[in-house]
Amino acid sequence: MSSAEEIAKAAKSAFDSQLGVASAERVNALHYIREALESKKTEILAANREDLKAAQVEVDAGRMTDSLLKRLDLDKGDKWDSMLQGVSDVANLPDPTGIVSYAKELDDGLELYRVSCPIGVLLVIFEARPEVVVNIAALAIKSGNSAILKGGKESNRTTQLLSHAIATGLSQSSLPDTYVQTIQTRAEVSSLLSLDQYIDLVIPRGSNALVQNIQNNTRIPVMGHADGLCSVYLDESADIEKAVRVVLDSKTDYPSACNSAETLIVHESLLQTVWPVVGRALLDAKVRLLCDPPTLSALQGLSPSPANLSLAGPSAPDAYTTEHLDLTLSVIALPSLPEAIRFINAHSSHHTDSIVTESEPDASAFCRGVDSAGTFVNASTRFADGFRYGFGTEVGISTGRIHARGPVGLEGLVIYKYMLRSVGTKGHVVGDFGAGGKKYKHANIATTTVPF
Amino acid sequence: MSSAEEIAKAAKSAFDSQLGVASAERVNALHYIREALESKKTEILAANREDLKAAQVEVDAGRMTDSLLKRLDLDKGDKWDSMLQGVSDVANLPDPTGIVSYAKELDDGLELYRVSCPIGVLLVIFEARPEVVVNIAALAIKSGNSAILKGGKESNRTTQLLSHAIATGLSQSSLPDTYVQTIQTRAEVSSLLSLDQYIDLVIPRGSNALVQNIQNNTRIPVMGHADGLCSVYLDESADIEKAVRVVLDSKTDYPSACNSAETLIVHESLLQTVWPVVGRALLDAKVRLLCDPPTLSALQGLSPSPANLSLAGPSAPDAYTTEHLDLTLSVIALPSLPEAIRFINAHSSHHTDSIVTESEPDASAFCRGVDSAGTFVNASTRFADGFRYGFGTEVGISTGRIHARGPVGLEGLVIYKYMLRSVGTKGHVVGDFGAGGKKYKHANIATTTVPF
Repeated sequence: MSSAEEIAKAAKSAFDSQLGVASAERVNALHYIREALESKKTEILAANREDLKAAQVEVDAGRMTDSLLKRLDLDKGDKWDSMLQGVSDVANLPDPTGIVSYAKELDDGLELYRVSCPIGVLLVIFEARPEVVVNIAALAIKSGNSAILKGGKESNRTTQLLSHAIATGLSQSSLPDTYVQTIQTRAEVSSLLSLDQYIDLVIPRGSNALVQNIQNNTRIPVMGHADGLCSVYLDESADIEKAVRVVLDSKTDYPSACNSAETLIVHESLLQTVWPVVGRALLDAKVRLLCDPPTLSALQGLSPSPANLSLAGPSAPDAYTTEHLDLTLSVIALPSLPEAIRFINAHSSHHTDSIVTESEPDASAFCRGVDSAGTFVNASTRFADGFRYGFGTEVGISTGRIHARGPVGLEGLVIYKYMLRSVGTKGHVVGDFGAGGKKYKHANIATTTVPF
Repeated sequence: MSSAEEIAKAAKSAFDSQLGVASAERVNALHYIREALESKKTEILAANREDLKAAQVEVDAGRMTDSLLKRLDLDKGDKWDSMLQGVSDVANLPDPTGIVSYAKELDDGLELYRVSCPIGVLLVIFEARPEVVVNIAALAIKSGNSAILKGGKESNRTTQLLSHAIATGLSQSSLPDTYVQTIQTRAEVSSLLSLDQYIDLVIPRGSNALVQNIQNNTRIPVMGHADGLCSVYLDESADIEKAVRVVLDSKTDYPSACNSAETLIVHESLLQTVWPVVGRALLDAKVRLLCDPPTLSALQGLSPSPANLSLAGPSAPDAYTTEHLDLTLSVIALPSLPEAIRFINAHSSHHTDSIVTESEPDASAFCRGVDSAGTFVNASTRFADGFRYGFGTEVGISTGRIHARGPVGLEGLVIYKYMLRSVGTKGHVVGDFGAGGKKYKHANIATTTVPF
């Protein structure tokens, strides 16, 4: 067993040693990994059954939830096959590196290119589902980053064999087999969090508590996800059908997802028009409604009385800062769009917020005024997702405001470097510029790739 | 005097309240600030003389360096005028916000736009030069961020009046006058570093120790600058004239700058050819050379003996990880390009490194293999600079690998959000997609601006 520092050093050295490797080689490595996983299927699933057996003991003893146990199972439905398909899918995505986003001729024969490149060494910490090891390994390899992975201890037997298959695949490619490593203990994580000379980015995928704990214990940048406290605002001009559809989908399509709505804001003018229809639909769908006095009394005053009216009750003040993650929705009436924007900026987690409106100026003001990663018009908050956005796959959803925000695709795993080439006969020096000397040209170069 | 928390809260609320403000209003604010500064010139320069007087006492008592005192002086040369011109220059730069970098039609009538927007509240900490208050205020306002600024205590009298003029200018505009605030004490900085609910990014501009101290004491992201340990590598095919010009400019143009070279790597095959010419030129320029045995004995074996040969001596092992910041250069001979790349990745600070070569494959391998923010070919490391890169102005140089890397222009002060608009008649919901339902289109939309 290597020490945490040896693991981190090996990861950095694996990263450095493959910087010149062509992107086709990464694709090859992913195919080898898929093959290695296929050939080890029997052993891996046997180890997974051992993990499940041990987990069942924990569940029986009341120390583990049943839903956690279910997430461990790698042989359920098409999970195994879709894990393998995921490796091929990532292999087939466009290469996120080598893309020029800024190119200028600084002087005759002096060309500057800003070109996307990997970040370096990623430390990824996640819980439960063992297939995440394979997902993240694929994303790291595709984007040219090396990775150290730590899964949940419940899946240690499975992840150890998955990692072994990954290393086997890597060893058949021209990438070092230490390019993706896994660790097993929290103590190793703690040690790694102090090694900012080797590790460039920490990606925690799990609970809010996990993310905050990591942020508090490292000076390495953290790309994480805090709360998902999303809201829908029904504007003065909201269309009734759109309101019902968007609110219902935002709340009920998958209530435990971070992009589900937790708060509904109703323009006061809708209390006797749109709100009763939306409220009835929510109660029909068995959504518990935590209402402020105006929205509650509007519901209670309806005739005939809505089905399941007992699910509607008064809201406590903390309702509007609570991530329910179930069929519960906090509801409040506000007098204007600016008030709604202020309320959202003060209460939401800056994840995704949606307006239902027929007014283009209001849509525009909402999208600019609400300070969230996603600002939507007449669309469900549930669209906030890397696959739906067209990224092919998702690294996670970032509620940070640095580097990557919202659903993060492969682009979130790259940064850029500046390449500067002098093609003159004398080389280029700064001393030739300035008072009495040459002037910078800063002429655009039209290219998306580096020409050398 | 407000508490740190009140200041942070006011900054966040100032940020939120101006989210819908048109970019022309920011430009107006910058013009008002310039006018306010001009109208207060006499008082500001009087306060600056007070600061200088107090600093002189410190210098006389040996508690402050003369160079620090010089940096305080706002009335030296054209400093005042160029500070004012800087405000107008920033006002005239292109707006970094509102730019669409990704646009897709997810479904008929469902349009996704990724659009650049400000980060939020910046906490900027810098040392000595009081005009930085004005520079940073201008950059923050132009990019739509609100800012809390902390200057060096030596310039408190000056920065207080500069801040007052900034607030006066802001109050004439439609931006809140708390949009840019200044603080005076380290205790306030300490308190602010814990307020990650209000502050989104810390930008320390100063010593390496300042940056590291801040990184260790906050979970707010930090965009900073560590060492500038740059190197030049003379490749097997290096042209002699280019080698001399690039090495001399990289070392001597401005030795105390972070983008000056500290290490020279010489391909072994050049020890009797290119290196003696470069070595003589460096000694002529009075550069102290800390050499490994092969490069030292090559110099000592020359006939006639080079001028100032006594400036060349043996290197201690830590020479290659030392940022000299003066006319000193560490020199080492290595047998190959791959060895040089490995050496640079292990020793440099990943700031900027340059190869002198006539080989395009070697140039290409160097630029890809060296893991630095700048990888240059036949060009001085001194080109690593925001103005030279064409950004108009510079927020700083980042040696981090997240968000922004290398010289940072206004683009480094923005992130993006996703705006999603349904233009259909029913609103868009996720429940309509998936098994048996609709498929995502992900068709490109050709635009650089949001159409609503």
